[in-house]
Amino acid sequence: MTALDKTKEAELVARVKAGEEVACARMMTWAERGDPRFAVAYDAFHADLGRARRLGITGPPGAGKSTLVERLALHWRGLDRTVGIVAVDPTSPFTGGALLGDRVRMGELSLDKGVFIRSMATRGVFGGLARATDDIADVLDLNGRDMVVVETVGVGQSEVDVAKSSDLTLVVLHPGGGDTIQAMKAGLMEVADIYVVNKADRPGVDRLVQQLTDILDVRDIPLQDRPPILTTVATEGTGIVELAGQIDASLAEREADGRLAGRRGENLRRRIRRIVDGRLRQDVWELAGLSERLDQGTAGLESGTGASVSAYGLAEEILSDYRERRHGETQA
Amino acid sequence: MTALDKTKEAELVARVKAGEEVACARMMTWAERGDPRFAVAYDAFHADLGRARRLGITGPPGAGKSTLVERLALHWRGLDRTVGIVAVDPTSPFTGGALLGDRVRMGELSLDKGVFIRSMATRGVFGGLARATDDIADVLDLNGRDMVVVETVGVGQSEVDVAKSSDLTLVVLHPGGGDTIQAMKAGLMEVADIYVVNKADRPGVDRLVQQLTDILDVRDIPLQDRPPILTTVATEGTGIVELAGQIDASLAEREADGRLAGRRGENLRRRIRRIVDGRLRQDVWELAGLSERLDQGTAGLESGTGASVSAYGLAEEILSDYRERRHGETQA
Repeated sequence: MTALDKTKEAELVARVKAGEEVACARMMTWAERGDPRFAVAYDAFHADLGRARRLGITGPPGAGKSTLVERLALHWRGLDRTVGIVAVDPTSPFTGGALLGDRVRMGELSLDKGVFIRSMATRGVFGGLARATDDIADVLDLNGRDMVVVETVGVGQSEVDVAKSSDLTLVVLHPGGGDTIQAMKAGLMEVADIYVVNKADRPGVDRLVQQLTDILDVRDIPLQDRPPILTTVATEGTGIVELAGQIDASLAEREADGRLAGRRGENLRRRIRRIVDGRLRQDVWELAGLSERLDQGTAGLESGTGASVSAYGLAEEILSDYRERRHGETQA
Repeated sequence: MTALDKTKEAELVARVKAGEEVACARMMTWAERGDPRFAVAYDAFHADLGRARRLGITGPPGAGKSTLVERLALHWRGLDRTVGIVAVDPTSPFTGGALLGDRVRMGELSLDKGVFIRSMATRGVFGGLARATDDIADVLDLNGRDMVVVETVGVGQSEVDVAKSSDLTLVVLHPGGGDTIQAMKAGLMEVADIYVVNKADRPGVDRLVQQLTDILDVRDIPLQDRPPILTTVATEGTGIVELAGQIDASLAEREADGRLAGRRGENLRRRIRRIVDGRLRQDVWELAGLSERLDQGTAGLESGTGASVSAYGLAEEILSDYRERRHGETQA
């Protein structure tokens, strides 16, 4: 039974590797749902990974990230490179899925077999957004995509983490999109390997570039690590060739001097930590009785008034229970 | 020794309860750092909690949240209510702390003993932002603050979660701040109990209110749960009295019909889950040897090419190790 299942997983791996889109989509669904079959499949293909170039693209809402990704994809297609795009859109509670919005504009690309686009919700993804996007990017790598782009629309901690989990991270800003202090607040500045000032036909572009330059001056970083600042007008395709050239150059440089390998190692370490943390979390709450224990305990704690056990106390009790139960199982 | 320590913690609890600001700040630092003394102190005071009204205020950058909070605080002071504000600002990597920015404007309030303001970084907070802000809000409750406001500047998943962990959540938007679709994407719409359209002296306010109304119409929610939409010009104090009145009315209504108690129960359940998850995560990586195991394992996995064990495989090995070690300790 297990052997048969593994054969099925190996079969899907082979189909993804052969470039099949349907197989690709199916394996991504496994990844999103935390389906155990993904881990089985992963064991069978992980040694084949590492060929694709992975870009993380992030920035505040309205910076024009999707249009920029679209333009980059068209450019790469012109160079005969295949492309995979993972677009992370938070779910709306009432559409029940990723909002289309920007994605609709990708129409031009969606007819091209050389471009695979996957929209993801940030909610309801099993075991965390970063874990799922890493896995999905791997599927695109296995699928033979030359360039894999993960675009996150948010500016929160977890969204920024996603963009960091790549070979190279682009931070896209635009003039008039609020002060750069907002981007600093969002933690965007520390993840940027390349700054893209998009909508550069609008007023304020010089000031924004100057602000970024000043901030970089203050940070006193080694010259090789200093993020270049490029300007684009994605809607008109201006600056895309230069940006794509900079991306290639930065990647080549980092590959040559070992920084790429180092970064991939770091990403991998963070990723395994996430997998372990996610599994443990799952383990506790799936262990029969502990969720019920929580419900009963909190019913007593209502509003925090007059209860005999505190939230921290109850958490400790649940943890002890977990360890004891696991202990019992190991002995059995 | 332990008894002595507990006495010290009880002493600090008493000082916080007596309204001492220095004691308050110290206990918040324990909470932020995940200091075990916080859990000890918590056991001693949790039964006293639940008196303060807790508001979560969130919205996209630039909506004017801080000014709005400042105005509300001034209004409440006029009614002789004491106020506690937790302002969540992501850390900049090179300032090494929370950026001041907006906070500077709070000058008027900072001289008033009736208002306690705590700025928090989203990074480097031990065990997650939501866990820490819940704890800090509790300290303000213990400190006797009538109104406790948690303001999050971000629009990411974890920041929205923070705003949800309250008695009532305000979502602040402003005309010209991008389409409401951006707010929907950020998951803001589902947490709103009250919508505030700030900067209502700017063009586009009618359109924004109409968009929100349309969205609420589509959602088909029960009338009692339908979030009211209020307009304000926080910089001029316009609409603040009405907003404060709506906040009081919504809270009173929810208290009377039991929704408040239900929500507090839910918040508590989520919170205990977070504590358990955080403790487990800490437990694994602090257990001697497992971090080293990860480092050794990933050194072999470099770039994912040609390795014999996959990331998922290594994660499983670390988990088994953890369980076995914990098992060994329980037996010892």
